[in-house]
Amino acid sequence: MNINQFAIAPTNLADEKKELQQIQFIRQSDLQLDPHRLLRHLLQQSFPEVTSNEAADSKIANLLAAPQLDALSLTQIGGAIQPLHLDNLILQLLGFQIGSDFQIDAPEKLAAHVNLPKFDHAALTNDDLVHAWYQLLITHTTTGQTFLDQLAGRGYFHRRPDLPKPLFFNGKAQPVFDTTQLIHEVVYVESSQDTDHDGMRDLLKAEITRPAESNQQPVPVLYTASPYNQGTNDAEGEALTHNVNVPLTEKPVTSDTLSHREPKPAKIPDPRVINTRTQQADESFGNTFDYSLNDYFLARGFAVVYAAGIGTKESDGLRTTGDPEETTSTTAIIEWLTGKRTAFTNRTSNTAIEATWSNHQVAMTGRSYLGTLATAAATTGVDGLKTIICEAGISSWYDYYRENGLVIAPGGFPGEDADVLAEETFSRQQQAGDYSRIQSKWQAQLSAINDGQDRTTGNYNDFWDARNYRKNAKKIKADVMIVHGLNDWNVKPRNAEKLWRAISNLPINHKIILHQGPHIYINNFRSLDFTDMVNLWLSHELYNLDNHAETILPDVLIQDNATAENWQAYPDWGAATNQRTRYHLTANSLSTDNLSQDTVQFADQLTDLAFQKYAKDNRQWQQDLVKAASPMEGHRQLFAAPAQTDELILDGCPVLHLSVASDQPIGLISAELVDLGHFKRLNPLPTTLARQAMALGYHFRKEDLREYEIAKKETAYQLISKAHLNLQNRTSLTQVDPITPHQSYPVTLELQPTHYRLTAGHQLGLVVYATDFGMTVRGNQNITYTLSLADSCLELPHL
Amino acid sequence: MNINQFAIAPTNLADEKKELQQIQFIRQSDLQLDPHRLLRHLLQQSFPEVTSNEAADSKIANLLAAPQLDALSLTQIGGAIQPLHLDNLILQLLGFQIGSDFQIDAPEKLAAHVNLPKFDHAALTNDDLVHAWYQLLITHTTTGQTFLDQLAGRGYFHRRPDLPKPLFFNGKAQPVFDTTQLIHEVVYVESSQDTDHDGMRDLLKAEITRPAESNQQPVPVLYTASPYNQGTNDAEGEALTHNVNVPLTEKPVTSDTLSHREPKPAKIPDPRVINTRTQQADESFGNTFDYSLNDYFLARGFAVVYAAGIGTKESDGLRTTGDPEETTSTTAIIEWLTGKRTAFTNRTSNTAIEATWSNHQVAMTGRSYLGTLATAAATTGVDGLKTIICEAGISSWYDYYRENGLVIAPGGFPGEDADVLAEETFSRQQQAGDYSRIQSKWQAQLSAINDGQDRTTGNYNDFWDARNYRKNAKKIKADVMIVHGLNDWNVKPRNAEKLWRAISNLPINHKIILHQGPHIYINNFRSLDFTDMVNLWLSHELYNLDNHAETILPDVLIQDNATAENWQAYPDWGAATNQRTRYHLTANSLSTDNLSQDTVQFADQLTDLAFQKYAKDNRQWQQDLVKAASPMEGHRQLFAAPAQTDELILDGCPVLHLSVASDQPIGLISAELVDLGHFKRLNPLPTTLARQAMALGYHFRKEDLREYEIAKKETAYQLISKAHLNLQNRTSLTQVDPITPHQSYPVTLELQPTHYRLTAGHQLGLVVYATDFGMTVRGNQNITYTLSLADSCLELPHL
Repeated sequence: MNINQFAIAPTNLADEKKELQQIQFIRQSDLQLDPHRLLRHLLQQSFPEVTSNEAADSKIANLLAAPQLDALSLTQIGGAIQPLHLDNLILQLLGFQIGSDFQIDAPEKLAAHVNLPKFDHAALTNDDLVHAWYQLLITHTTTGQTFLDQLAGRGYFHRRPDLPKPLFFNGKAQPVFDTTQLIHEVVYVESSQDTDHDGMRDLLKAEITRPAESNQQPVPVLYTASPYNQGTNDAEGEALTHNVNVPLTEKPVTSDTLSHREPKPAKIPDPRVINTRTQQADESFGNTFDYSLNDYFLARGFAVVYAAGIGTKESDGLRTTGDPEETTSTTAIIEWLTGKRTAFTNRTSNTAIEATWSNHQVAMTGRSYLGTLATAAATTGVDGLKTIICEAGISSWYDYYRENGLVIAPGGFPGEDADVLAEETFSRQQQAGDYSRIQSKWQAQLSAINDGQDRTTGNYNDFWDARNYRKNAKKIKADVMIVHGLNDWNVKPRNAEKLWRAISNLPINHKIILHQGPHIYINNFRSLDFTDMVNLWLSHELYNLDNHAETILPDVLIQDNATAENWQAYPDWGAATNQRTRYHLTANSLSTDNLSQDTVQFADQLTDLAFQKYAKDNRQWQQDLVKAASPMEGHRQLFAAPAQTDELILDGCPVLHLSVASDQPIGLISAELVDLGHFKRLNPLPTTLARQAMALGYHFRKEDLREYEIAKKETAYQLISKAHLNLQNRTSLTQVDPITPHQSYPVTLELQPTHYRLTAGHQLGLVVYATDFGMTVRGNQNITYTLSLADSCLELPHL
Repeated sequence: MNINQFAIAPTNLADEKKELQQIQFIRQSDLQLDPHRLLRHLLQQSFPEVTSNEAADSKIANLLAAPQLDALSLTQIGGAIQPLHLDNLILQLLGFQIGSDFQIDAPEKLAAHVNLPKFDHAALTNDDLVHAWYQLLITHTTTGQTFLDQLAGRGYFHRRPDLPKPLFFNGKAQPVFDTTQLIHEVVYVESSQDTDHDGMRDLLKAEITRPAESNQQPVPVLYTASPYNQGTNDAEGEALTHNVNVPLTEKPVTSDTLSHREPKPAKIPDPRVINTRTQQADESFGNTFDYSLNDYFLARGFAVVYAAGIGTKESDGLRTTGDPEETTSTTAIIEWLTGKRTAFTNRTSNTAIEATWSNHQVAMTGRSYLGTLATAAATTGVDGLKTIICEAGISSWYDYYRENGLVIAPGGFPGEDADVLAEETFSRQQQAGDYSRIQSKWQAQLSAINDGQDRTTGNYNDFWDARNYRKNAKKIKADVMIVHGLNDWNVKPRNAEKLWRAISNLPINHKIILHQGPHIYINNFRSLDFTDMVNLWLSHELYNLDNHAETILPDVLIQDNATAENWQAYPDWGAATNQRTRYHLTANSLSTDNLSQDTVQFADQLTDLAFQKYAKDNRQWQQDLVKAASPMEGHRQLFAAPAQTDELILDGCPVLHLSVASDQPIGLISAELVDLGHFKRLNPLPTTLARQAMALGYHFRKEDLREYEIAKKETAYQLISKAHLNLQNRTSLTQVDPITPHQSYPVTLELQPTHYRLTAGHQLGLVVYATDFGMTVRGNQNITYTLSLADSCLELPHL
């Protein structure tokens, strides 16, 4: 078991003593006890579930300090307290098992792998004990939380209601707020927009959960903008999903796909006249879907606000899938949270209500569309938004639904598009009364989105340009923490990488964490203290705690793909200064030495039978695409490098240069970079190690403990990266050129950014093909492609 | 969407009015309002999250009563309130969507499928409205709970703290208890046993969660005996797991495998002397793994108690895997809960504490080992145990680890046995101090279990006889509700069926629910109101509510295998009065007409390569076993009936009569009954429809909504039932005969009980074979079996 902690704040003994007193773990007078009595006190404090000495002694006697010596006896019989004793006790308190995890006579072997101090003297002093216990409290147990968090879950803070709130320990907010007394409120924020053109400013529903203590002392806010939060129209979205078994068509030639016209500013109705003001909400809410990372912070003195935005149930407006109007509706909530905008208690009485409980410091959180809107909000530079934790967010919607002049589906969702997502999230539809009044406007809006997204050309047009948040990256004032999966083929890593590049030189703090998962959350992995990192970060950002989060947290943290439970810090990701190795393409192989003068061909069209099979079973297609002898032979070109003798750490965007001809006036090129060879690799999804194992407070929400494990079976390959390009867009994204059949054109494909450790024995593979059954349109057209190998090469950035 | 409700108590209008007033949904005076005002009141009550009239009106206006007529307008403009209006409003309140679920101008098509009253007059009266709303409150929404439960999750009862507690509606306890003020306590019950022979009676840790209101008014108890509850030793259990790649060996001949010796009664030390008495526990507990069915009842005025029993962490004693000592430790907790036994606040101070908060009415709950111990406790006839809800419980451990003289693994766990499970659950081992004092006794105990379980013969000996709870079935006084999966190959259905038979004629109430799942919980299925059924049952059993639960709930409820969301009530399961059809075995087929004089053979031994493959991949073996042309050809005999022209509903235990010879002095016979044919069948596991969708109280625990769906892909077959038998046990379970090679013996295999609807087009299949890669030992021995078909037949019980 490897536990990686990056959120530990360095301390000195004096501060450790002070902090331990602040949380009432020791009193000043305890420091004067003899070491054996101090040890007993520390042990007793480590069992917060008991109140009597007898009960505590039973617990202490169940710990073993040495063979034949239990901890209670150690505190009673005198004699030196040795490092061995301490190591044994602390490892047991952390949940490690004697026998299976470590040996009682040699705990130091395991202790060296966790955050435990080493002592080189035989008899430990009070200072040693206090220092060791401080470190114990901030060290992760075997169930994915610090020992102090575990004590909190066992009642430590619950028994000490008189502690100050908020309370920080080792730079992180502690769960001292009363989660049994949370306040749940709904307000309707009046936005400066009228997207449903009813002559009234849009009202936006927001759901607030906050500690009752915020009535006395304002608290910061975690705000999650989630269009899914009020329900989704899954069947309706499914019904709108586009047929992808359609041909690629020739696009009109143009030197610029953008109009460069500024959109007309919309006329905004006057704000509502405020009738009265109140501090009492008149709507609450019940059971909702909650994100456990947000819940964790409720116990620690943060409020949590969810808002679904324009066009969702009980809000006004229309869904737009990421345009500036949606961004405006997203920041409106922040403006109310920071005292700059009006909200009402309900939709009709014009009774204004202020967020008096907010300290005006806001962070945005959430994954996928939620993280996307955090990015959108940050690019407005809205005041009061101190930081965003953007997990798997989209930074330009073109990079989600399109690529290099092609319609490209998010992995797993062929035929999805901006209109489908708009329909799915237009939850106003779920209220028949409301929907009956808005239905015709909504159908017009859907039709406009369908026009704007333009599935015919796949061009980067005004519609997509309006949905590219990176254009406004320079306006970002909020600190940014990006989290993204290197195997996320839904929101592809390019979204994170291009945002990362765009903010690299801004005067903000920015961090990025790259994991080996697909489109998932990572706040319950055993091997990483992600939640602590966010705590350190938000305690700093929102409570202005001077905890050095900005320097303690690594700028770039990447989960290793080749071994389990291995997270490494790096100075950058995909840095321009990376080395680059060039591989030539020769018949069937990638070579750094040999150049081939061959041309090779592949035909895109499959038999009807094969086409139908792959269209139904994308997984089978993906396997056959990479397999050496497979039905895909002749329909793709596979190039394999020799097996690695040394390891190679790819880092950044691989670039593929091809000289390619199509025998038709149309064409598309796809490429996959793969790791070949039969090996046991990380599973594609984390394993649930223990259900409900993590406590987010005292008898409050719980979370499962998960971890990436090495698979029990070998796999034949692992996808590293991929790219797609319309040959008509070979010059640029915004230029559409004609294709002369049989004429070779130089094209450059920038593959999705990666960080991949190719260890010895593994083989780098490149597949060049056309139709991607999981992502492109599938016309099954009679097109043959010719590659001139001499003018083709693969450039790999690496460490 | 099909929602089946079996827990609705029939009512009359007078009672409905009374109950609606009891929960403060209406006042007497509301009944005098004109219908439009009453309707508005009922609608307003259906939005408990709002407190102002304006906010309520906005909600009401979002419901549509008819095309172009929203609900608010309906209550304002006068005119008749029509059945169409009411149907539309109620369907929307239940969560159904206009368009995708029903049409606004024809709601009656859907309304007929849910629990809605039909009215044949045009203008609805106050009585109609009140009746309809009562029915609405007890009807399931689209998210798997009654509308009243959903209102509770949205704050209905939270806003009415002055309601009486407990509070029943339609015969079921309502969530009126304050889940923010739950009390968590630990006590140590002193049992009348000393299983670790330390001269002191065993102390057993119990964890209590109870509403604070129980300090004023005692409440009933849901008690779950869970040996897993204090942690498990997974690695240690894994290490003990037996090698199953061992030969079947010849067993010594015996006419009786049982000794018929009564075990010596153990000497029991005197009870501890009580020092003092208290009502205040001195230990609490924090985060634990909780079962959502138990949690649901906390809000409804029930306490929940977990105890792990002898040999678990912080209890005394040794694990035994199901012997009478474990039963004694299980019932000891009940005796304390009913005032007949001492418990202490901790392990050393001898401070006694009584369960003053218990009303002495106890139910046991839980699945698998937990349900097993519920059965064990019931067979003692212990006072105060009013009922058990036994989910997937073992009723005789021989039926879990053995079958007909063979070692048979629970499905998915080859090599597991009683000693492995004992080691896995011996969580005292997790506390090194405690373990160091008990280690040698534990090793001796493990060795004794290993001897007793006797993997060499697989015989039904004294060890297994002591672990057969059904021997004491006649002592059962508690009412019994059995829940079992018809596809549970871990705890096989025989455990449920033989218990069901054993209690059929006892003077107790007994119910059985059979679902199509494997070894799973069913309390969050959308298609069944299982939780309501348990509520009706426990309100009756533990609160003595005269709600007719015993007659309202069907005696036998079975989920259909051929269609989704279809649950049917039956008078019995596997009744002796079922019809029986006899199928003859002919070459490759099952026939009701033709008799074959052939003999057929199969050889058990596989090539080394095939053996290794199947040993590693049991799933592949299972597929090949049933496949027509497969590598298993020659290693099994496959008989298939003609495709069904009519449907056939199997019900009970199929019986296979074979005349079989082995060419060795050893032999085993296995058989599988399968449903053949490429069809879309139910998925093997339920789908999660919506995460966190069900509220178990107000901002309390949540549960995912799940349902069995028909698979999107066809499968080639479905396993219906199976059986295994050692040819040396052909006469009886307790008699071991010799085998003369090549001599034919008549043998009878009773297959696992089933209930299976074989619809037209499906084919019944029978596979006869020897080694079962998932369950038997796998000696890969050179044994050839010969079947005389003329003397072989399959007897199928059916409706």
